[in-house]
Amino acid sequence: MKQNPSEYKTHLAYIKKLYEEQVPFNKLLGINILKIDVDELCIQLEMKPEFVGNFIKKILHGGVISSLLDLTGGLMAFIGVLKRTQRYLSFEEVTKRFTQTGTIDLRVDYLNPGKGKYFLSEASILRLGNKIAVVRTDLKNDQSVLIASGTGTYLIG
Amino acid sequence: MKQNPSEYKTHLAYIKKLYEEQVPFNKLLGINILKIDVDELCIQLEMKPEFVGNFIKKILHGGVISSLLDLTGGLMAFIGVLKRTQRYLSFEEVTKRFTQTGTIDLRVDYLNPGKGKYFLSEASILRLGNKIAVVRTDLKNDQSVLIASGTGTYLIG
Amino acid sequence: MKQNPSEYKTHLAYIKKLYEEQVPFNKLLGINILKIDVDELCIQLEMKPEFVGNFIKKILHGGVISSLLDLTGGLMAFIGVLKRTQRYLSFEEVTKRFTQTGTIDLRVDYLNPGKGKYFLSEASILRLGNKIAVVRTDLKNDQSVLIASGTGTYLIG
Amino acid sequence: MKQNPSEYKTHLAYIKKLYEEQVPFNKLLGINILKIDVDELCIQLEMKPEFVGNFIKKILHGGVISSLLDLTGGLMAFIGVLKRTQRYLSFEEVTKRFTQTGTIDLRVDYLNPGKGKYFLSEASILRLGNKIAVVRTDLKNDQSVLIASGTGTYLIG
Repeated sequence: MKQNPSEYKTHLAYIKKLYEEQVPFNKLLGINILKIDVDELCIQLEMKPEFVGNFIKKILHGGVISSLLDLTGGLMAFIGVLKRTQRYLSFEEVTKRFTQTGTIDLRVDYLNPGKGKYFLSEASILRLGNKIAVVRTDLKNDQSVLIASGTGTYLIG
Repeated sequence: MKQNPSEYKTHLAYIKKLYEEQVPFNKLLGINILKIDVDELCIQLEMKPEFVGNFIKKILHGGVISSLLDLTGGLMAFIGVLKRTQRYLSFEEVTKRFTQTGTIDLRVDYLNPGKGKYFLSEASILRLGNKIAVVRTDLKNDQSVLIASGTGTYLIG
Repeated sequence: MKQNPSEYKTHLAYIKKLYEEQVPFNKLLGINILKIDVDELCIQLEMKPEFVGNFIKKILHGGVISSLLDLTGGLMAFIGVLKRTQRYLSFEEVTKRFTQTGTIDLRVDYLNPGKGKYFLSEASILRLGNKIAVVRTDLKNDQSVLIASGTGTYLIG
Repeated sequence: MKQNPSEYKTHLAYIKKLYEEQVPFNKLLGINILKIDVDELCIQLEMKPEFVGNFIKKILHGGVISSLLDLTGGLMAFIGVLKRTQRYLSFEEVTKRFTQTGTIDLRVDYLNPGKGKYFLSEASILRLGNKIAVVRTDLKNDQSVLIASGTGTYLIG
């Protein structure tokens, strides 16, 4: 049986909580999932003093950027899997599938200095196969300047 | 005037301190530079509960891995620049050059689950040009299992 | 003195010829530059039997795809350099700068089977710095299916 | 039933022929598989005038380099699959599996100018999973200078 929209919504709300509160490193970063839908994902990260890399220029550390792009892409790949599933999944199954999704590889292009009060990361699926998904993610600052762009390949359950 | 070995050592000790204590996100991760020499670099990261990504498998978050690979590669690129400099640099100049080094792009391949009590990241320079450096970095766990491998392109001053 | 539009046009026509006829491997592939402007670039490649990789599925070899993405990105980076130049360049200078542009690294994502009578490759600049340019290129077939997407970092003169 | 060494040898000789003579673009390049074994692969490419990219410096086109790295990595991934197969495969099955192997993504780092009379491409497997393989490939010239290094992710049957 194909999932109906309200089932999706329940799943997505559950995944949002899982991602924000159950993944320890996501919690350390303090990510905030602003929008999560079958075709849309937007994650916010607030600038904090401890995220700085270049302490003279006071800009975001490259590792914070790659972390955010990686986790955004991974979540989008997972949403893609969920969207395609033709039957109702229990929360246990959702959790299991979530932990089976993993990054295979990631390329990050650092395009502009990571300056801003907050940053927004958005993802779009380039390929959704049976075994792998390829996802592109863009990170912009509060002025909509493109800070970095990433392409990740993810293993999907 | 070309630098002599003792000048290198002083510079490298200074950079080690800069990297471990002055870069906020490095401090948050708690990186520990075990070896730093003109041809060798080894950085240690201890596993901490807040670094976990997959909370069922209790393995390192992909973002922690990419962070460590990025910062190791960037430091190696910087050491390469320093090695080539034909004259004595003041600490002020070292700091300035350090902040001018930046990641252009990075590819990370996630090869094995990030399981371990600690992780070691090592770098080797593939290309050292006038404008850019290409550095490869490997991340192994306490059992010498290769967890991830990265290749980064860095802008050098 | 800044170049005027008619100078650009003369330069671009010259570069088109250089690229199509003077670069031996481009000639072997038989690339056809359909549009070349300061903000737009579209290169066509006709399918030929000798470009096939998978001989059962009769699809484009991955190497032909990466070649096309690489050369499209490199040309776009070069156009970016030219656009920014604040003075008139002789053809000799254009040629010299052209040969100084080089690919530093390239990532290619193969998204759909390379099936088609012809393929179109388009580029857009993600970053244009003093030393390097980052360019994204998309390859589509005659049905506008996205076959592959690439991101390249280029050294610019 | 596990394959015995003589079966491997027959398969590998068959694959060598397939790769060199049945893949049209490989034939156009004129690749020559010097060594092919379960743990070793070395492919030679002779420099030809039509492979030149930069016509002033007379060096290999970036696309020829990425082509060679891609096909070397793909072949190595396929050998890895074959090595792991626990039973005898007919030539038909080998061909079928060969055509099911495909590149998901590839990163190429161009490290030194592609100057030489011939080039050698070697591969090593970084990861061999159930669904994907990650392979690193190095391209050297006749003086053993490292011209380029690649990392590819391949879908395996």
